[in-house]
Amino acid sequence: MEMKELYDQYETYIDHEVTLSGWIRNHRKQKEFGFIDLHDGSCFATLQCVYGNELTNFAEIQTYRVGSTVKITGILIPSPAKGQKVELKATKVELLGDCLENYPIQPKRHTKEFLREQAYLRPRTNLFQAVFRLRSVISMAIHSYFQEHNYVYVTTPLLTTADCEGSDQMFKVTTLDMNHIPMDEEGKVDFKEDLFRKETFITGTGQLHGEAFAMAFRNIYTFGPTFRTEKSNTKIHANEFWMSEPEIAFCDLDQLMDIEEDFLKSVIRYVLDHCPDEMKFLDQFVEKGLLDKLNNVLTSNFVRIDHKDAIDLLLKANKDWEFTPSYEGDIAKEHEKYLTDYFHGPVFIKNWPKDIKAWYMKLNEDGKTVAAVDLVVPSAGELMGGSQREEDYDRLMERISTMDVDRSTIEWYCNLRAYGTCVHSGFGMGLERLVMYITGVDNIRDAIPFPRTPGNCEF
Amino acid sequence: MEMKELYDQYETYIDHEVTLSGWIRNHRKQKEFGFIDLHDGSCFATLQCVYGNELTNFAEIQTYRVGSTVKITGILIPSPAKGQKVELKATKVELLGDCLENYPIQPKRHTKEFLREQAYLRPRTNLFQAVFRLRSVISMAIHSYFQEHNYVYVTTPLLTTADCEGSDQMFKVTTLDMNHIPMDEEGKVDFKEDLFRKETFITGTGQLHGEAFAMAFRNIYTFGPTFRTEKSNTKIHANEFWMSEPEIAFCDLDQLMDIEEDFLKSVIRYVLDHCPDEMKFLDQFVEKGLLDKLNNVLTSNFVRIDHKDAIDLLLKANKDWEFTPSYEGDIAKEHEKYLTDYFHGPVFIKNWPKDIKAWYMKLNEDGKTVAAVDLVVPSAGELMGGSQREEDYDRLMERISTMDVDRSTIEWYCNLRAYGTCVHSGFGMGLERLVMYITGVDNIRDAIPFPRTPGNCEF
Repeated sequence: MEMKELYDQYETYIDHEVTLSGWIRNHRKQKEFGFIDLHDGSCFATLQCVYGNELTNFAEIQTYRVGSTVKITGILIPSPAKGQKVELKATKVELLGDCLENYPIQPKRHTKEFLREQAYLRPRTNLFQAVFRLRSVISMAIHSYFQEHNYVYVTTPLLTTADCEGSDQMFKVTTLDMNHIPMDEEGKVDFKEDLFRKETFITGTGQLHGEAFAMAFRNIYTFGPTFRTEKSNTKIHANEFWMSEPEIAFCDLDQLMDIEEDFLKSVIRYVLDHCPDEMKFLDQFVEKGLLDKLNNVLTSNFVRIDHKDAIDLLLKANKDWEFTPSYEGDIAKEHEKYLTDYFHGPVFIKNWPKDIKAWYMKLNEDGKTVAAVDLVVPSAGELMGGSQREEDYDRLMERISTMDVDRSTIEWYCNLRAYGTCVHSGFGMGLERLVMYITGVDNIRDAIPFPRTPGNCEF
Repeated sequence: MEMKELYDQYETYIDHEVTLSGWIRNHRKQKEFGFIDLHDGSCFATLQCVYGNELTNFAEIQTYRVGSTVKITGILIPSPAKGQKVELKATKVELLGDCLENYPIQPKRHTKEFLREQAYLRPRTNLFQAVFRLRSVISMAIHSYFQEHNYVYVTTPLLTTADCEGSDQMFKVTTLDMNHIPMDEEGKVDFKEDLFRKETFITGTGQLHGEAFAMAFRNIYTFGPTFRTEKSNTKIHANEFWMSEPEIAFCDLDQLMDIEEDFLKSVIRYVLDHCPDEMKFLDQFVEKGLLDKLNNVLTSNFVRIDHKDAIDLLLKANKDWEFTPSYEGDIAKEHEKYLTDYFHGPVFIKNWPKDIKAWYMKLNEDGKTVAAVDLVVPSAGELMGGSQREEDYDRLMERISTMDVDRSTIEWYCNLRAYGTCVHSGFGMGLERLVMYITGVDNIRDAIPFPRTPGNCEF
């Protein structure tokens, strides 16, 4: 049986014989008995298994190393030890898989840097048991929210021949032999031999495709891997990460903020319900006050403030900013922190200066700002970025030509405005950012099973 | 309000005023009144909206074209027309977005080939409303099954510097300027300038990484996009598709088949529960007998047969095979069809000749076969492929060297057998194959929102 099943109904198993298979997390040996902390991966907790020298292979059991796989049969009994309700009085301990003595994951504190070098083993530690189960549960919370609200999950393509995002920010993809790239007469790559017969990239967003589906299914969302070629070695950048991009027809910026707020609260509630043990551990050992922070989000109403009013606030703050707040400029990390501190919770910053935002965002009446909104949250900064999309064909065309976007590969996208356009909005949320916010881990490398960062594509 | 909400509780809305926004699917005009079939994407059905010449903008409404976006207010009334319970007696019809006259999706039968060329508009047709909502619901059924059974969702990386799958089958990924690839002294690409400083690929499987996580979480699954460079222009091949790869610790081949069977039945049950309208449409217009086929799966016990016994059967069949069945060989499409016909349902074919299967599969006692299993289903062929993995370090090493696999980049994978190995198994299932099986569409291009096939990476 699985340990989770046992713990879920431990009272019914007391005084009964059970058999568990798992890995030795810790092994304390004494002369006449020993203690094995067994972990089987099905839940966060371990189970203490006590064996005595009445077992015929007692001496052999004492040689079982941490990390080994064992099968233990025994009687579940109430535990005399503090902090655990039950323990297993072993009647049989069997070795299933030995573990070499040089096993890197020993029952002691390892640095996160060391564990990153053991990426394939680190999920066996408490920290990564918590983080990666939460990553899974958060992913499910995202799917559940959207499916329960009648959104259609759309898997948008990663391969694209459109370079409207700027090809230098996208990975190039080829089936050509890179050692012998065929060149045309002008000395440029001859892509005729390549699989798609065109220069091909990995796209950085599914939004454009998502919009096409929102015009058919009303509410849709994407959720999949996303790629950036950025050479940033920071705590919040990775070259491969996951993102969800909902897109909603007949939805303006105000309604979008309603959805974002409801969505975030729903995910947090789901996580607190499903992972109490993991969250308790993280609250205790990773971010003190984590649970308070999240519970506070559940009961707060997110502030909604215009970009220009946010700048007013920042300028009035009379602080010694590293980056001077500007009505035409972005909001820096230090500004986000000030604003979330000031309002004691998540803040929507909306109606941004058009020149620093994307071409597809809806131009406001003032002609100066676009209907974009960023959600910034305490300690993690920007969590979601969204906008109402420009639904007017002519105004979209104007923006495209002003901002020098290559129209040729997105004609179809523009046509959505000619074939039954409607007010619509959407946002994007990086899964890792949310995982970091909810688990308290402060480095994206610890929020991704096998992170890819510049110079680092191991495992 | 959304149309789904209205239909879900239509009785409570009868004689009440409601307002709906959506697109005109069909528009029949008569002298004194008109009929608009409104579709808002929230459900499969449309709603008939009747408007009369008492409306002040009656003449204008009559000019609204198919594909346009409208907002209609009216009183919901029981419908006198056959095949629909309610209709809307419009009191106000407002144009939100016009539709050009050249709109390709007219209320008539379009060929699937034509619709593929309109990939961004085809989700607005009945066929693709059904198929793509089902794709979404099937995806959710997959997540639900695994999460309810306490599996951890692992997002394995797509970018890899390991070419153990054979680099000619993988896409190469680079940030180098392809027009000016830097070369080293030996005339080979100098990857020092590339983002990961090594030759990089898109992997074709998450299994190896999944195994590492199964050794920590016991039950895990992946679900994400997968890539193949195959130049096959068939109905079942695409270069980008989605795959789920569960991996289960303490699970042998028999238990794996139990899981696969339970999983498939659960997904079918979920789909029949959640999409009755879509399934009815597909049963009627795409694959006659579709519902019977799926209901039959729910009540059948899947046959389990050794590869050699399957070959026996095929040879005894005394048929004029295009491919002669062979004890050392693969099972062709025509063989799969014979076997599923013969057993009237899904068939597990297990214990395959080792030379035609992968290096990581567990060698059976006979030294000739491996503990692999393919699930073949009526009409769709192979739906899942799985195996028990070789958990013994030495035997794995032997297979690796016999089959000439490059060990250098998978040392970590092999080490899983040195650090607490255990019997474990997993399978892979292509989402599109399952979508085709459940919806009855027979071309993978119609099961993927924006398909990528050789020479075709449009939209």
